[in-house]
Amino acid sequence: MPATLLNVRLLAVTPNALELIYAAFRQCYHAGYVGDMWDGLMAGEPPREKQAAFVERILASGHDSPVEHVSFTFAIEGVSRTLTHQLVRHRIASYSQQSQRYVDASDFDYVLPPSLAKIPEAKARYEAFMAESAACYRELQAMLAAKGRKGQTSNEDARFVLPGGVESKIVTTMNCRSLLHFFELRCCMRAQWEIRALADRMLALCREALPVIFATAGAKCARLGYCPESERFSCGKYPARPA
Amino acid sequence: MPATLLNVRLLAVTPNALELIYAAFRQCYHAGYVGDMWDGLMAGEPPREKQAAFVERILASGHDSPVEHVSFTFAIEGVSRTLTHQLVRHRIASYSQQSQRYVDASDFDYVLPPSLAKIPEAKARYEAFMAESAACYRELQAMLAAKGRKGQTSNEDARFVLPGGVESKIVTTMNCRSLLHFFELRCCMRAQWEIRALADRMLALCREALPVIFATAGAKCARLGYCPESERFSCGKYPARPA
Amino acid sequence: MPATLLNVRLLAVTPNALELIYAAFRQCYHAGYVGDMWDGLMAGEPPREKQAAFVERILASGHDSPVEHVSFTFAIEGVSRTLTHQLVRHRIASYSQQSQRYVDASDFDYVLPPSLAKIPEAKARYEAFMAESAACYRELQAMLAAKGRKGQTSNEDARFVLPGGVESKIVTTMNCRSLLHFFELRCCMRAQWEIRALADRMLALCREALPVIFATAGAKCARLGYCPESERFSCGKYPARPA
Amino acid sequence: MPATLLNVRLLAVTPNALELIYAAFRQCYHAGYVGDMWDGLMAGEPPREKQAAFVERILASGHDSPVEHVSFTFAIEGVSRTLTHQLVRHRIASYSQQSQRYVDASDFDYVLPPSLAKIPEAKARYEAFMAESAACYRELQAMLAAKGRKGQTSNEDARFVLPGGVESKIVTTMNCRSLLHFFELRCCMRAQWEIRALADRMLALCREALPVIFATAGAKCARLGYCPESERFSCGKYPARPA
Repeated sequence: MPATLLNVRLLAVTPNALELIYAAFRQCYHAGYVGDMWDGLMAGEPPREKQAAFVERILASGHDSPVEHVSFTFAIEGVSRTLTHQLVRHRIASYSQQSQRYVDASDFDYVLPPSLAKIPEAKARYEAFMAESAACYRELQAMLAAKGRKGQTSNEDARFVLPGGVESKIVTTMNCRSLLHFFELRCCMRAQWEIRALADRMLALCREALPVIFATAGAKCARLGYCPESERFSCGKYPARPA
Repeated sequence: MPATLLNVRLLAVTPNALELIYAAFRQCYHAGYVGDMWDGLMAGEPPREKQAAFVERILASGHDSPVEHVSFTFAIEGVSRTLTHQLVRHRIASYSQQSQRYVDASDFDYVLPPSLAKIPEAKARYEAFMAESAACYRELQAMLAAKGRKGQTSNEDARFVLPGGVESKIVTTMNCRSLLHFFELRCCMRAQWEIRALADRMLALCREALPVIFATAGAKCARLGYCPESERFSCGKYPARPA
Repeated sequence: MPATLLNVRLLAVTPNALELIYAAFRQCYHAGYVGDMWDGLMAGEPPREKQAAFVERILASGHDSPVEHVSFTFAIEGVSRTLTHQLVRHRIASYSQQSQRYVDASDFDYVLPPSLAKIPEAKARYEAFMAESAACYRELQAMLAAKGRKGQTSNEDARFVLPGGVESKIVTTMNCRSLLHFFELRCCMRAQWEIRALADRMLALCREALPVIFATAGAKCARLGYCPESERFSCGKYPARPA
Repeated sequence: MPATLLNVRLLAVTPNALELIYAAFRQCYHAGYVGDMWDGLMAGEPPREKQAAFVERILASGHDSPVEHVSFTFAIEGVSRTLTHQLVRHRIASYSQQSQRYVDASDFDYVLPPSLAKIPEAKARYEAFMAESAACYRELQAMLAAKGRKGQTSNEDARFVLPGGVESKIVTTMNCRSLLHFFELRCCMRAQWEIRALADRMLALCREALPVIFATAGAKCARLGYCPESERFSCGKYPARPA
């Protein structure tokens, strides 16, 4: 049961993402049918640079609904249940998470917070506690099994001792608009460090796949030009909200 | 300004759709990480037939959230504003619709209901009225332009005379779970004929692309085994709800 | 079939709205249980002014999810189908709209755009066209009825001639967070005049009922401090986005 | 840090809930304006029994969107983080949950699963582990504080040792349609015992407040007339799905 590290794999992106967003934007303002324009788009007509410029200009004016047509699916491991409980609060998204009922956790992996890793005695205390949790989990499983509750019916009650740091795995799909919102909140220095690390990694994957949408994405201060948090909480990168 | 016909083009489907749904389902019940399983899935391990059987079995038990990870994007033309007003009521979906403000409708196309097409005098009356609408639209545009309102500011008020039958074009994205719900409602004989024709066409495209999910999709009676509508409204294909 | 005017009636607001939002915010930061605090809140402890100050301070920092616990329900009449088609695009909301299938439209009312009302010849042309639409609707109904299609089956096809200006009635419920977003978009001078008038009226009702949330609500420029629209489209009230 | 028990308090229901649902349904089928009908409804015209009968008849045919206009807000305590992680997966709902970052958990309460409570040695082992978790949490807090991380910055990392059984408090609002769906899934014998107990309690409160909608609500088998779970998992109350 070692400490694990965040790992994210991009499983799927809507194909021809730029062309699709361009087509959707165009359909709003165009007399013709984008279904007829599609073969041209696939052949680079208009060229991708022109498509990108059109999309950027309209996005800048705040009309962002057409980016919803493109979605990203990520497989995520090496994150804590503490993180996933925050993650699934984002409601415009889909989730498939490893079940603590169906999956035995006798030998679970866990996330080690960097702040604890840096203090040798804290790290030792934390690791010993993780081992103790796993031992307690197995003992309770066994006691329940002795009373006839086996498999998922013992897992589902033994798991009440599993700590928040226990590793989870989850598949999530978000469309680009929801992702932009997710990054606004979770790439902020005010976000908890673990979900911020996840958001940063997801953003890096999005930028690589679709720079026209994600090149300038990130915490909301970057878009607003000021920090909406109170002075007490601001990281100071941007000035406070103008009065 | 001719009568138009429904035309649907499938612009995008999430790639490796079956593998993605399989992976998402598996992540719920599996100790390992589906990110590690993905290369195997791409290489046909386990074979697609086994993946499909696993997905079908779990879907049958009513656990359908993992199908949300796959989305379909359709470009649609030849439909009326009467239809699109119903379509956009489906809230778990994304829409980019041709604007009656930005797009001039001086020479609009229109949808001719089959019931009217079958009655020569009704067809003639309808077609004459469509021409009259377009004429009125142009006259109002001109009157507004003479007062200095041009382009979109004249379109946006002249359009109050455009009939419900005026053709619209729209791009829509729905995930598979939302599509299954859409088909349950809109493939029903109780649905209005035009949106039923659209739903039937979309379902045909979905079935071709992803039969494991859509082979048995359709109106909700097929799933329930009975018709939930009252006797007065039932089409009679399925018996009434058991008492 | 006269021209109608916008009419909005507030049918319901979540009771004890301020206390509820305060309680929800407090639960996030408080060790105790707000269920135990509720009787005190009902008795004015802490006083409403203190509750309001707490809510305003947290809202200002951008943490707005607790305002979702309060919803408003409006009954709306005197609006066009052109408006309702835009309204129902707001997906975080509930709608119950008068059906053009079940409700006979032989003698429909309509919305008269102010720009047309100001030009006597345009007004006359528009009114005559509305009368012509109603006449055509009735004729098509009769022709369909003569072939055995009566009631809703004739309504549902005759309605293809009903103009966008035909009056509709709708009941809608939105929570405060969705309302704030609705006002950001629809109180903007860029919004179409009819839906802006509706948004302004709804905002006035919200302000009266719950000033702590809605006193400063409105178009997004007020919150941002700049206009996100391009220079070409800006109304000029706020400066362009800082570079 | 005692074991706690589930406690639910209904903080708010949309006022005049039956009348509101009746009005919304009526607006769909009625030529008049329900805003004009509202004073009559408040005065009992038509009588509530007639309203209820109308609503029940239409609901039975599967047209359930008007029930969305009514929402319930619950304050919940005495539930585990294991439960809340499941609860917040219901996306058509609003949540305000006690933060493990802002609220110190040095002396947390916890949920004791009944299966463990029945086995004296398991209960003792569980309780000792809960005490050990709290001790470890406090030690880690102190070690972090010694390095300058205090308050929420120590809470947010020390909480990685808090077990799933730790008590949480949460305020949630759901509309009636979302509640009906929640009860279909979570009142099922297949649901985890703790969230089933919560769902049962919420349903009892809903039934008391609005019997016309909730009298027959519950697990989905009751509506379907069969159990959609596989034979292996069915509780046997209803027969398997007809072939």
